[in-house]
Amino acid sequence: MKTIKVHERDNVAIPVEAAPKGTVLEGGLVLREDIPQGHKIALRDLAEGEAVVRYGVTLGYLLKAVPAGGLINEHTLKAAPTPELDGMAWGTDIRTDLPAAPVATFDGYPVPGERFAGTRNILGIMTTVQCVSGVLNVALARMKAELLPRYPHVDDIVALNHDYGCGVAIDAREAHIPIRGLRNLMRNPNFGGQIMLVGLGCEKLTPDKLLGPDELNADNVLILQDHKGFHAMTAALMDMAEKKLEVLEARRRETLPLSALCVGMQCGGSDAFSGITANPAAGYASDLLVGAGATVMFSEVTEVRDGVHLLAARCTEEATAKKLAAEMRWYDEYLAEGGVDRSANPTPGNKKGGLANIIEKAMGSIAKSGRAPIVEVLSPGEKPTRSGLVFAATPASDYVCGTMQLASGIGVQVFMTGRGTPYGLAPIPVIKVCSRSDMKDLWADLIDVDAGRIATGDATIEELGTELFRDIVDAASGRKKPWAEQYRLYNDLCVFNPAPIT
Amino acid sequence: MKTIKVHERDNVAIPVEAAPKGTVLEGGLVLREDIPQGHKIALRDLAEGEAVVRYGVTLGYLLKAVPAGGLINEHTLKAAPTPELDGMAWGTDIRTDLPAAPVATFDGYPVPGERFAGTRNILGIMTTVQCVSGVLNVALARMKAELLPRYPHVDDIVALNHDYGCGVAIDAREAHIPIRGLRNLMRNPNFGGQIMLVGLGCEKLTPDKLLGPDELNADNVLILQDHKGFHAMTAALMDMAEKKLEVLEARRRETLPLSALCVGMQCGGSDAFSGITANPAAGYASDLLVGAGATVMFSEVTEVRDGVHLLAARCTEEATAKKLAAEMRWYDEYLAEGGVDRSANPTPGNKKGGLANIIEKAMGSIAKSGRAPIVEVLSPGEKPTRSGLVFAATPASDYVCGTMQLASGIGVQVFMTGRGTPYGLAPIPVIKVCSRSDMKDLWADLIDVDAGRIATGDATIEELGTELFRDIVDAASGRKKPWAEQYRLYNDLCVFNPAPIT
Repeated sequence: MKTIKVHERDNVAIPVEAAPKGTVLEGGLVLREDIPQGHKIALRDLAEGEAVVRYGVTLGYLLKAVPAGGLINEHTLKAAPTPELDGMAWGTDIRTDLPAAPVATFDGYPVPGERFAGTRNILGIMTTVQCVSGVLNVALARMKAELLPRYPHVDDIVALNHDYGCGVAIDAREAHIPIRGLRNLMRNPNFGGQIMLVGLGCEKLTPDKLLGPDELNADNVLILQDHKGFHAMTAALMDMAEKKLEVLEARRRETLPLSALCVGMQCGGSDAFSGITANPAAGYASDLLVGAGATVMFSEVTEVRDGVHLLAARCTEEATAKKLAAEMRWYDEYLAEGGVDRSANPTPGNKKGGLANIIEKAMGSIAKSGRAPIVEVLSPGEKPTRSGLVFAATPASDYVCGTMQLASGIGVQVFMTGRGTPYGLAPIPVIKVCSRSDMKDLWADLIDVDAGRIATGDATIEELGTELFRDIVDAASGRKKPWAEQYRLYNDLCVFNPAPIT
Repeated sequence: MKTIKVHERDNVAIPVEAAPKGTVLEGGLVLREDIPQGHKIALRDLAEGEAVVRYGVTLGYLLKAVPAGGLINEHTLKAAPTPELDGMAWGTDIRTDLPAAPVATFDGYPVPGERFAGTRNILGIMTTVQCVSGVLNVALARMKAELLPRYPHVDDIVALNHDYGCGVAIDAREAHIPIRGLRNLMRNPNFGGQIMLVGLGCEKLTPDKLLGPDELNADNVLILQDHKGFHAMTAALMDMAEKKLEVLEARRRETLPLSALCVGMQCGGSDAFSGITANPAAGYASDLLVGAGATVMFSEVTEVRDGVHLLAARCTEEATAKKLAAEMRWYDEYLAEGGVDRSANPTPGNKKGGLANIIEKAMGSIAKSGRAPIVEVLSPGEKPTRSGLVFAATPASDYVCGTMQLASGIGVQVFMTGRGTPYGLAPIPVIKVCSRSDMKDLWADLIDVDAGRIATGDATIEELGTELFRDIVDAASGRKKPWAEQYRLYNDLCVFNPAPIT
């Protein structure tokens, strides 16, 4: 029976397959009870109160003694305290020995005035408020049927529907978060700098909150209350879409340095294998991308909170470490106001998959950031100003993280999953990587990359990370379409709004 | 120039049309400045600090003196203080002289074990989590194309997509609000008691949180992680939908007493006419419905907050008045935690339409509840247990209020609008009533009923209210389809989640 121990200091390991009581492990240890796949086995007799160590990190302290070969899970473990945010050491773990990337360019759509190039050529139609979505969706179906086929160089038309915009406290302390998110979302490089904003006319999120004075004109903004009924609205929407499609139709891919690419890393439905297969492979791909000049973004505040000191150590500047602490503190307080804390994060699926608590989940989650230095920390939906590895402080919720990373300008997202999700984003390709080979066997036509081969010994982290790097470049260049893009499996956008609704 | 004064105590009136400076009003008053349509004119010289009275209620106090014929708007008025919630008098305004309804029945779809009958026959597919929406939406398109035409007695198939379910603090203090909302939403009578719940398999909102033990089985629940890839999932979804459609196909309308009907009242994009045309007409229709035994629901906490004492006076029991106060207090605190208060409600469109502040908006909003006694107060998404007029304490946001009223079981919604919105709900017919005739002229094919005829003197509140009552009964009975239903203009569902996301 193969088991995996991540770090030399670890006093637990996990079995690659479910292992019944009595199984003899490599080295002779006998299992005292049935151990589900990926759950933790005590490697020696552990006393009550003793630290359980995985990834070289203390996950928590035992609530009762566990003998060698016994099971350790969420019921036997008291979580270690959250790391302090004040006075974290920074810059103490700056790695410059990143691996060399096999290629240095991709084929993207440059956008004048923008750092990042597009990976697809899409008409993105932004809304100021959900009130317009009904009309827009009907018009969108017509646009796709009647207009899109006449513009063969345009990949898609996407309505950026959202539930912000009215019935919200638009002057609330935190209202800048959803507003900034929407403003930047409509500027994702895949939309080619073309602005098509559909408003109602009486909403709180007025067009000037999303557009600059030079953009605020009838070429870019269509207000439904200015039009004489449904048919006139539809006709005006079709007309405006066509004008934008004409401009987008002229876009062509160019060979560009990887510095014009922004890649988002996210994980969801994690299990105990996520942190030793899919996420480290993504981390290696991230290091290759960063080494080649690309920008890579990782996120999910509640999933890194318990490893924040490890991230601070990788920040290149004090200001970056301070912003990291400030974003974490903001989220601590946001959760506290709702009467919860970081322990609200792990899901039933996480626990079933062997993750005992948020600390274990965090260690696995952070693995997707590789080893590169952190050059910038972004508030949710902010755009990066530097190339390299960036922490974007979004919620961990898959669809909220995805939406806010889109706002930050990603052109490809890599999504690591343990339990499996059919997640996809309409504006960009999403590459899905699973942590276990049986997931790939189950969902052969939904999972793009099987990182379970690392657990079975069929691939190294470096090999799989390099393969993933090539997949990212190919997807960005339009040479590969991940499964979600092929089937058009798209989640709804979900902008982060921590402010009250009215 | 025709002006409207609502209450004998009022010291302001509003012009039916925009009126330039120098216009002479009925009675001889000369306008001192240009008055936009629906904005307030001082009817006599008013001193700084003097109360401005409309609807017989103090809207606020003048920041500067305004002469007779001058304009009063949000810039000249300081809002009156919010009514106290402690010790409100209740039961002091119980009206039993409700008008008699011209008909007492409608044709609906009875649902075994439910108070309310359906008004449409729809397969509603609930989701536990947004992760499944991509797959479900692709399958839904196939269901509509391949299955629905074979079930002519089924009106539609609707995916109840939402952004709750994972990445949320499922054990938070307020998590019961979205969970109850979703649980009741899938039981809206239009879905005929058929349960089709699509889950992922690792989400926090496990199916047992939405279903009872007897409902929790493979006939009702489909978990994507149990299926072998995308094509198998789609096939299973099609198969399950077909089984539900076969059951729904047997439903037939029956003539039922109006006590089997639940009607929701909502307003959005209000203006100064809303409170004197559309909302009072809706209120009269509400009184007719209540008098005939129906249940009518009105909502929008922040829009009634400033008239809460008027609602308490209409509560038939102390416990109802206490729950009203408790819901208002909860919302006051919810807003305060976000650093805002009830003044966050009015929109730019409201103000442009002549509503100076939330008090003026509240008086207009409350008008849609007619004069009937309030027999019950519901927390958001709760189902009524009594027939009659009910206050459902939802946010005022159009799409959130609509979603939560659907959860409470409405079969028809009446939507009053001043500025105009193309709003619609997929599961039920929505009748849109405008407050001004020029809105109906502009949106002839989106507005169902023109209540502006009350302002122009072409109809009385009673006449228009009776017409609206008949429209409600006809829409409920399937004899009339409002415009939004004809064009399939549907807003996305948006469940109220005041708890943090993770």
